Amino acid sequence: MNFYMPTKVIMQDDCVMQNIDLFNEFGKKALIVCGKSSAYKNGAIDDVKKALSSAAIQCVIFDKVENNPGIELAYQGAQFAKTNEIDFVIAIGGGSAMDLGKVIALLARQNIKKENLLNTNYASDVLPIICIPTTVGTGSEVTQYAVLTNNEAQTKSSISSIYLFPKLALLDGKYLKNLPYSATVNTALDALSHAVESMLSKKNSDFINEISVQSVKIIGECLLKPKEKQIPDNAKKKLLYASMLAGISIANTGTVMLHGMGYNLTYFKNIDHGLANAMLFAEFLRQIQKFDEKFVDNLMSIMGLANLNEFENTINFLTESDLAITESEVELYTQKAMNAKNFSNCIYNLPKQSIQAIFKKSLTVK
Amino acid sequence: MNFYMPTKVIMQDDCVMQNIDLFNEFGKKALIVCGKSSAYKNGAIDDVKKALSSAAIQCVIFDKVENNPGIELAYQGAQFAKTNEIDFVIAIGGGSAMDLGKVIALLARQNIKKENLLNTNYASDVLPIICIPTTVGTGSEVTQYAVLTNNEAQTKSSISSIYLFPKLALLDGKYLKNLPYSATVNTALDALSHAVESMLSKKNSDFINEISVQSVKIIGECLLKPKEKQIPDNAKKKLLYASMLAGISIANTGTVMLHGMGYNLTYFKNIDHGLANAMLFAEFLRQIQKFDEKFVDNLMSIMGLANLNEFENTINFLTESDLAITESEVELYTQKAMNAKNFSNCIYNLPKQSIQAIFKKSLTVK
Repeated sequence: MNFYMPTKVIMQDDCVMQNIDLFNEFGKKALIVCGKSSAYKNGAIDDVKKALSSAAIQCVIFDKVENNPGIELAYQGAQFAKTNEIDFVIAIGGGSAMDLGKVIALLARQNIKKENLLNTNYASDVLPIICIPTTVGTGSEVTQYAVLTNNEAQTKSSISSIYLFPKLALLDGKYLKNLPYSATVNTALDALSHAVESMLSKKNSDFINEISVQSVKIIGECLLKPKEKQIPDNAKKKLLYASMLAGISIANTGTVMLHGMGYNLTYFKNIDHGLANAMLFAEFLRQIQKFDEKFVDNLMSIMGLANLNEFENTINFLTESDLAITESEVELYTQKAMNAKNFSNCIYNLPKQSIQAIFKKSLTVK
Repeated sequence: MNFYMPTKVIMQDDCVMQNIDLFNEFGKKALIVCGKSSAYKNGAIDDVKKALSSAAIQCVIFDKVENNPGIELAYQGAQFAKTNEIDFVIAIGGGSAMDLGKVIALLARQNIKKENLLNTNYASDVLPIICIPTTVGTGSEVTQYAVLTNNEAQTKSSISSIYLFPKLALLDGKYLKNLPYSATVNTALDALSHAVESMLSKKNSDFINEISVQSVKIIGECLLKPKEKQIPDNAKKKLLYASMLAGISIANTGTVMLHGMGYNLTYFKNIDHGLANAMLFAEFLRQIQKFDEKFVDNLMSIMGLANLNEFENTINFLTESDLAITESEVELYTQKAMNAKNFSNCIYNLPKQSIQAIFKKSLTVK
């Protein structure tokens, strides 16, 4: 059993304003990394600015985060951080903002050529990172990962370095109030896939499994019993917690092939990351069931569901998604998924026809 | 919910030899802190010396650890570390060795006057600490605490600093093979008190509670169903894991008054730390029961026991302890327990007569 997760996690109402003193540890000038819209609307930026001002810390804002940010944007942010002589980074948002914030913190201190960014040894010299998640999926606030769009490899690629663990994660459910239904569903299903994939990882342990079980249980209660297309604020708050738990799990185990498959739908079809996994989730579990029926039965019972059909129907009700792909796309995506690093991280060695079947049965093949 | 535990934990057979590369991160000269006997007999020192030698790291040994080490010994060890220009500390043993190792790592880098040691602001400059636990109780390998005998205050006092978290904890069950029955029982009961006290702490959270529950469950299975006075090796290994879990719990919550009471028996009556808590444990829970019957019922069920009487009988069977104290000692110990910091950390405010009752009913009053 291995465990490492050095981020200090504080989940508490008004935790930004309640922990002003903690900001002081990190320096006198902060870079806020966020998107151009939600962090302003949900009040997170206001709170952070107020807290920084109370602590006499200057700040500048880099609010250019977009969905599935690419390498180019990370270099642009790092240049901005250097120009402004930043001491630490505060990333506010979902996975895109937090992951971009991490890479900016890295590139602000280390000169790494673009072509080497995804495949080099990172040194320990990284600006301190504070993460404030405002979606319920990525868990990036407690992981060493930063996922960026990699156009050269035509997929999303993950940078992994223990130096990218945030120093501090501040979780406040109030920033989720405006999170739309679809974004809540998609990100929560991403968290669910983290927890489940972690359970199927070769690096899973009793300790991590228990954390994943807790996460799945909460997502089962708060998401997988939908009566209407609406998620109350208190459920969102619990999902934020579950998403953090699943983040701790994958920080220690990594993901498996569901993520590797989903990246294709995101890269080539612009399907939201959480939704991409969700669309393939039930069929993925059908293939796992062939290896380990008990695992799937037990998983459904943790979720509070009768069986895999109920799981599939629930996902369909929540997401109402549909996507058509061609036979040759099935072939391409299967190949790319099988070449991805996380493919061999699964305790079950799914054969090629299983991966093809997951794509074909989950999507409409033209 | 707050969570912080930045130690990298590796629990694995032969983990010292399997992770030689990790030692290299910490420098070129190590100080091994241990007692004069068990670390030699259980093979831990041999493994560490072999690993260091493979990594071309020099080492010197400070093997003067005794039970309940005092402040004086920590300064002596720090002087030894300074003289030998040590880069990092490897502590091998139970709580005494690990806690002393932590304080040596602190004092080797910071000039703190003896009279201020237990009550000052510690800076971040501490030698890196690696812990290799060889008992199943303290959890010190994953905490920020170092407990030393404090003759001035006539008790054991705890230094707490986030800089005292070990960088690395290496847990290998094979070092427990020679651990005597009584030491296994006493330290495992210390771990049990950590887990239970953590559940009763004001700082408890769902996340930590789940970790404590896992710990209690394992200790229930491996210790609290004794058929004979013998603990098999595989049970010891599980207890080592449970003890680490309980350490993560108290790192985040602290202990409550059971520890504060037990310190008196250790300081004044030279009762082993784990045993001291164990002797007071059942009566402590009887007082808690008055506030929260459900908590105790639930706890017994997690332990796999029918009720508190069965718990008491089990502890008595395991420890066969007896101690006589006087009325005035009851008074003194009660006062000292109520003045200790962890007293007010409990969610239940036990009145003075409860504390007196715990001492009187647990021990023989002369």
